[in-house]
Amino acid sequence: MVTKTVDLRSDTVTKPTEAMRAAMASAEVDDDVLCFDPTAVRLESTMARITGKEAALFVPSGTMGNLISVLVHCEVRGSEVILGDNCHIHIYENGGISTIGGVHPRPVKNNEDGTMDIDRIEAAIRDPSGEIVYPTTRLICLENTHANSGGRCLSVEYTDQVGELAKKYGLKLHIDGARLFNAATALGVPVDRLVRAADSVSVCLSKGLGAPVGSVIVGSADFIKKARRLRKTLGGGMRQVGILCAAALVALQENVAKLEHDHKKARVLAEGINQIKGLMVDVASVETNIIYFDIEEGFHMTVPKLCKKLEEHGILVMPETASRIRLVMHHQISASDVQYVISCFQSAMTWVPEENGM
Amino acid sequence: MVTKTVDLRSDTVTKPTEAMRAAMASAEVDDDVLCFDPTAVRLESTMARITGKEAALFVPSGTMGNLISVLVHCEVRGSEVILGDNCHIHIYENGGISTIGGVHPRPVKNNEDGTMDIDRIEAAIRDPSGEIVYPTTRLICLENTHANSGGRCLSVEYTDQVGELAKKYGLKLHIDGARLFNAATALGVPVDRLVRAADSVSVCLSKGLGAPVGSVIVGSADFIKKARRLRKTLGGGMRQVGILCAAALVALQENVAKLEHDHKKARVLAEGINQIKGLMVDVASVETNIIYFDIEEGFHMTVPKLCKKLEEHGILVMPETASRIRLVMHHQISASDVQYVISCFQSAMTWVPEENGM
Amino acid sequence: MVTKTVDLRSDTVTKPTEAMRAAMASAEVDDDVLCFDPTAVRLESTMARITGKEAALFVPSGTMGNLISVLVHCEVRGSEVILGDNCHIHIYENGGISTIGGVHPRPVKNNEDGTMDIDRIEAAIRDPSGEIVYPTTRLICLENTHANSGGRCLSVEYTDQVGELAKKYGLKLHIDGARLFNAATALGVPVDRLVRAADSVSVCLSKGLGAPVGSVIVGSADFIKKARRLRKTLGGGMRQVGILCAAALVALQENVAKLEHDHKKARVLAEGINQIKGLMVDVASVETNIIYFDIEEGFHMTVPKLCKKLEEHGILVMPETASRIRLVMHHQISASDVQYVISCFQSAMTWVPEENGM
Amino acid sequence: MVTKTVDLRSDTVTKPTEAMRAAMASAEVDDDVLCFDPTAVRLESTMARITGKEAALFVPSGTMGNLISVLVHCEVRGSEVILGDNCHIHIYENGGISTIGGVHPRPVKNNEDGTMDIDRIEAAIRDPSGEIVYPTTRLICLENTHANSGGRCLSVEYTDQVGELAKKYGLKLHIDGARLFNAATALGVPVDRLVRAADSVSVCLSKGLGAPVGSVIVGSADFIKKARRLRKTLGGGMRQVGILCAAALVALQENVAKLEHDHKKARVLAEGINQIKGLMVDVASVETNIIYFDIEEGFHMTVPKLCKKLEEHGILVMPETASRIRLVMHHQISASDVQYVISCFQSAMTWVPEENGM
Repeated sequence: MVTKTVDLRSDTVTKPTEAMRAAMASAEVDDDVLCFDPTAVRLESTMARITGKEAALFVPSGTMGNLISVLVHCEVRGSEVILGDNCHIHIYENGGISTIGGVHPRPVKNNEDGTMDIDRIEAAIRDPSGEIVYPTTRLICLENTHANSGGRCLSVEYTDQVGELAKKYGLKLHIDGARLFNAATALGVPVDRLVRAADSVSVCLSKGLGAPVGSVIVGSADFIKKARRLRKTLGGGMRQVGILCAAALVALQENVAKLEHDHKKARVLAEGINQIKGLMVDVASVETNIIYFDIEEGFHMTVPKLCKKLEEHGILVMPETASRIRLVMHHQISASDVQYVISCFQSAMTWVPEENGM
Repeated sequence: MVTKTVDLRSDTVTKPTEAMRAAMASAEVDDDVLCFDPTAVRLESTMARITGKEAALFVPSGTMGNLISVLVHCEVRGSEVILGDNCHIHIYENGGISTIGGVHPRPVKNNEDGTMDIDRIEAAIRDPSGEIVYPTTRLICLENTHANSGGRCLSVEYTDQVGELAKKYGLKLHIDGARLFNAATALGVPVDRLVRAADSVSVCLSKGLGAPVGSVIVGSADFIKKARRLRKTLGGGMRQVGILCAAALVALQENVAKLEHDHKKARVLAEGINQIKGLMVDVASVETNIIYFDIEEGFHMTVPKLCKKLEEHGILVMPETASRIRLVMHHQISASDVQYVISCFQSAMTWVPEENGM
Repeated sequence: MVTKTVDLRSDTVTKPTEAMRAAMASAEVDDDVLCFDPTAVRLESTMARITGKEAALFVPSGTMGNLISVLVHCEVRGSEVILGDNCHIHIYENGGISTIGGVHPRPVKNNEDGTMDIDRIEAAIRDPSGEIVYPTTRLICLENTHANSGGRCLSVEYTDQVGELAKKYGLKLHIDGARLFNAATALGVPVDRLVRAADSVSVCLSKGLGAPVGSVIVGSADFIKKARRLRKTLGGGMRQVGILCAAALVALQENVAKLEHDHKKARVLAEGINQIKGLMVDVASVETNIIYFDIEEGFHMTVPKLCKKLEEHGILVMPETASRIRLVMHHQISASDVQYVISCFQSAMTWVPEENGM
Repeated sequence: MVTKTVDLRSDTVTKPTEAMRAAMASAEVDDDVLCFDPTAVRLESTMARITGKEAALFVPSGTMGNLISVLVHCEVRGSEVILGDNCHIHIYENGGISTIGGVHPRPVKNNEDGTMDIDRIEAAIRDPSGEIVYPTTRLICLENTHANSGGRCLSVEYTDQVGELAKKYGLKLHIDGARLFNAATALGVPVDRLVRAADSVSVCLSKGLGAPVGSVIVGSADFIKKARRLRKTLGGGMRQVGILCAAALVALQENVAKLEHDHKKARVLAEGINQIKGLMVDVASVETNIIYFDIEEGFHMTVPKLCKKLEEHGILVMPETASRIRLVMHHQISASDVQYVISCFQSAMTWVPEENGM
């Protein structure tokens, strides 16, 4: 019988802490559409300061943050955006930039570390000098940390290089920073330095930071003005939204410092799993809080079977492919949970031959 | 010096009550994108039951509720929607159904009571038999109560007639029920009866019902399944959204019963204003909680000046046109507030000649 | 047995003349996408000169001419266009400006003469000062002659007034001039004077002018540059298009002068029909080449029956509504054809009682 | 001084022959929008027969043919199309499927021979079972011959395999067959066999076949019905279009048989160029009428300089990159033109050292 649940599917499963609940219960609020909600204003100015940008806007989700950012930079019909072929916007956001925004994506190969080669990006930029068969390149998107590459970090240097390239061609740079604080923590650089080259950034507050709901996008005052209007168009303008922003402010205070521990716990878990016969993790690639591991080919275990066995022990994981599973560490997984998970993995994997023998 | 504020700009300015705050602080939540948030599920099933529909979906705003509803009914490129030329979707939602959804609106004249003549609707339906120059009519939208006509109610009979017309031509019927509970209260009919003819309804919880954030759309299970996906595309999928849904559940319990009082207070306020020299209200048209009044032509007062004078007394109102102001009643305006407001209006209007004489 | 056909359904049914065919057979052509087709260039510069605009572009149809024009003026997402609620773009072009272009239409009532009241246009212009719930008004569209009002002409004065209004609010003015030459002819003003206030005009060459295919849009050099690119996007860029342009150049030379006769023949036909018992034409409203007539209510004749009887005599007409039929005059209908048509109408209408008696 | 022009930039530069001009001059035509143009009908039924499909539609360009095809298959909002990352639709059509149609592209790596690996296509198909973050895969696009891979042919076997994959997943298959007749000729298979697996095909008539204007799309009767309507929406519906279709019918009769010679001339030209010091062609890859050649790295010649020198001899070519030039063979280049071109290349390339020595 399961007595506890360890939910490693995503850091989006984190639940509001007592401090967050208290903050929500006492938040000062107003109609954020008709005028401005004071708590929303406080969160937005805090995030603008942290990221070193002029202005900020609270949105219901990272998907809306990215959608608005791309659409504001690509407000003129016939725009194209260069982005990684394995990035979240291209793979996991319903194709919204095209299906809702009419923006044409030009995917460039994502390397294993989440980067795109600079020369590949440059080659994908359309020649603006009058070729009437090309859409107009207007934006480059990066993702930091890069989820599908296992939460790896883009360095300051790389980000700056892409920023310089963007400037050279008159393009904008957007960073999908759903887990930007994880990247800054792992790299040991201030957040504002890390995104200095970006014209806009979307940062999630309900992943590792643990707020119940929401993301914030940051950029120039003009960008945010247009973003605010587009947020209304999409239906993301909320009334007494200070409730949610109050929790997010607590998340910034409470949980940023915990990310370092999350990364350590992730590393411990990765190493533990890697020592189990039949499972493989590229431990060196576990730079932040995401772990991808593979079941060895030919080993007597499948992804669905392993997921099921883990679930019997209250451990929830995310199957990715026929041989790969994703785990995401967060502040509501303790060090002892990690040991429990490792031992459950061991028993699940060793139990296999017996089961097959039955 | 202002000692109190009476905010009559909209019922969206209502702030969460203590009971709502307590409910939010203790709400049971989960990741509503990855699995289902139990409190969201509870709100959605409650709203489905109240409206007599199969399923429901919480969305961040009424604008998103309408946008999703129109886009789901008009999922095929080349769709046209018939709607009132003075309705909220056409006038106040950024044209999102076209600019985001590519749906072509075919506005039909709204009468003073918020209806559209049935024969005008019928004449606007495109002949589907092969005319290749016409978009395909797929949807009729009603609005109940109808905001721009002063919150007037569409009757059960009228709604049923439009529903029959829709069925006859194979069209869907969507009701923008931002203030649907006001309509049901004023008409004295159950909500589910009032929207029986509708394929989908969008209902706002953060207007008269006083929840901090959100609307719910209701319809068939298939409609809601598509709506859930489109909500994700638009970025309206929120994680531990049960926080907001907990407040909405309290709103349903606490505030539905208060709407009748709101309507009475609105009528008292309307009558009070109508007795002031220089101001005119069509009192009979104040069926719910919205009051439009006009400054008499030639009278020594302008809308901006009156707004300013009222603001000096802490009274906030919404200027509509050069001669018209909107007031919206809600549960956080007391009967004595109403008397205070009337007296402030009186002094503001009588003070005018002196001021002119200065 | 039918021995001749008189096709009055539309002036689009006109067939290329011998001179046009000869011109097409000998046209100098080149790849108009890769470089420029000399005959296309000649047509475009001719049309730019006639309309008094900087530049011009040949397009496959009037629908594409209007679509491109609206989309170029409304190139930024979130645009709204003010246009007549009975105009061709709103009624007969598949809603393409929304379904393809994502532009939100704001229809304003068309008067019987095809105009929209200036103050109604002005009232429909969105206040740009920050209201985040409004789309941005960017364009006003007129239609001259106005097809659905029976081909009536907008005067120079009216057009100039709308142009001044547009300038006052920083809007663009597009004229759907599908039958612009008819308007200029009927008004007795030069084409360039008539459209002086317009930022763009779409002119059809395959209606009264009789070219086999195509329209031309005119405007500033910058407008046409953007239009050329959008034409390519839509798939309207054609290779050796000089073939079609050669015929259009002949149409301009041959047929502009014939429009006056078309209008006279239309007037004769209208008067002839109006004298027939049971048929009614507002003869004064027949300003150009379009005639709408109604079957008197209660008269023993229906639109389908009359159409069928006329077809037995080789006369093709266009049913509009349950009581209304449209006729369009063009240069391939002779004066004697007109007399033949009138006599056929007479016999069709008088034959009715006998038929009923059978 | 230049005495002749040899235009090798594209096969779109072909000019109508005398027979085509005669056919255009005498074509039987009618209003193809209002009713049906008999010559258009003849061309469409001919193309339907040749390709083995139920129905066909003439369109002004290959770009519109592809745009309509993709949009008809992806008529429901939220659709995704799998296509080659180096294919014409993705690279050279202004991103229209997204910017006009709101369809999300999912590019898959094009191999050097124009194919995409079957397993890569399969991996790109979205799991339809409810994942709410994915767009819906609805279409796979192939291109045959594949222009950017040098006009190489997709085999019957490969096409059939992709067709089977599409069927397995309930997807549609569209083939951009701009140069489909070249592929069928080179492969020695009937056109209908080559596209048997396709649900729709777009075939260009104004490239190697030499018609002045136009493409034809083919597919099921239902597909073409929807395509006809969308053609009208886009503005591609043309009136007396039989003029152009008459030339296209001649092109089918006259020029299909000439494609084999075009391919031989292309091979001769490729071999000739490959023997010139400093120039490199992969002769084996010249399967049809397109030749890509590169200037050897370090050789004393640049693409712009070579283009200029060739232009002095009346030879027009298409620069592709900093080191690559494209040549396209067509029926209006004679065998002696080919020899002339080779000798001009020789003199242009040998002249270089002297020039540098000056």
